[in-house]
Amino acid sequence: MPQGKPEYVPEDGLTTRQRRNRALLIVHTGPGKGKSTAAFGLALRAWNQGWPVGVFQFVKSAKWRIGEERALVALGASGEGAPVDWHKMGEGWSWIQRPGSEEDHAADAREGWEQIKRDLAAEKYGMYVLDEFTYPMKWGWVDVEEVVAVLRDRPGRQHVVITGRDADPRLVEAADLVTEMTKVKHPMDQGQKGQRGIEW
Amino acid sequence: MPQGKPEYVPEDGLTTRQRRNRALLIVHTGPGKGKSTAAFGLALRAWNQGWPVGVFQFVKSAKWRIGEERALVALGASGEGAPVDWHKMGEGWSWIQRPGSEEDHAADAREGWEQIKRDLAAEKYGMYVLDEFTYPMKWGWVDVEEVVAVLRDRPGRQHVVITGRDADPRLVEAADLVTEMTKVKHPMDQGQKGQRGIEW
Repeated sequence: MPQGKPEYVPEDGLTTRQRRNRALLIVHTGPGKGKSTAAFGLALRAWNQGWPVGVFQFVKSAKWRIGEERALVALGASGEGAPVDWHKMGEGWSWIQRPGSEEDHAADAREGWEQIKRDLAAEKYGMYVLDEFTYPMKWGWVDVEEVVAVLRDRPGRQHVVITGRDADPRLVEAADLVTEMTKVKHPMDQGQKGQRGIEW
Repeated sequence: MPQGKPEYVPEDGLTTRQRRNRALLIVHTGPGKGKSTAAFGLALRAWNQGWPVGVFQFVKSAKWRIGEERALVALGASGEGAPVDWHKMGEGWSWIQRPGSEEDHAADAREGWEQIKRDLAAEKYGMYVLDEFTYPMKWGWVDVEEVVAVLRDRPGRQHVVITGRDADPRLVEAADLVTEMTKVKHPMDQGQKGQRGIEW
């Protein structure tokens, strides 16, 4: 709530304005739906604020998130709001001049993280969506301690949203805002498969 | 997951294709962040599929969701995807030719619900986002039994997403997909107020 009152005022030497404008590390985790969709909703807010948006999809299939991709790319190209860059691991990342390896997703994920580090150092975006990035951390493809250290020390005002199940406790500890999405009821429980326009 | 396997196949006489294409009633509830942002993420998918999107914001302040509103209205006007209508209770609803009452939010909420009933009967949209609609139900401004009956009996293929805390158990029972967003950690706990581009 814009007029929300904090529960207490910390003794961190910051003014309310400085505290208000602190860049956030946000984590959407848990087994329920909505982790990524909520992250893309935040990207809409960033676009509206004129903050350049960088999406890094750490997923194998290029079919995922096609609705969100088309929408955010269209918004980025609209001349209003902010530019949007959409990077997909499933197609071998846009900045790499060779097709993505079918064999080595771990190397692909590390290349994604290396680019994010470069972009953070250059303060390229105001909002980073690191979609499904908990998995490369969980599987040991990227080093959690390094991820946390780089994110903690990132310069300037760069918001970062990380999505995926099973967020590492060290990531949760470092984050400013963590939401767990819990499944209460899902159509697949009743034998329904995922459907176009809802699941992707 | 597009290729997700259901846990069992129900004996409902439907083909997999019919079951797959069943319109869903989706509820995002719980005290955590992301209920509405995830609903607007679903609206992006609907837009991409060419399903007309109707947003009904059951909130008092017209300042809320300005990022999502600007983005979805821009997408709706882009000539790609689907049209988008964005209705706000806080401004007295777009279809009503008088300013919204400062005094009677209950009447305003009921007028919103009456319009939704007309639109459902006319199969006007493929995706309805009823943002914060749990509150008029909770406060007794609209009748939960009627809402559930109308949604259960809605014609055609119209997806409906309802957001807000404290979803009524009857709504949860009627819904196909329910996700609870749980707060794990929030900046306001550390004395930080809501901020532009993140909270709205």
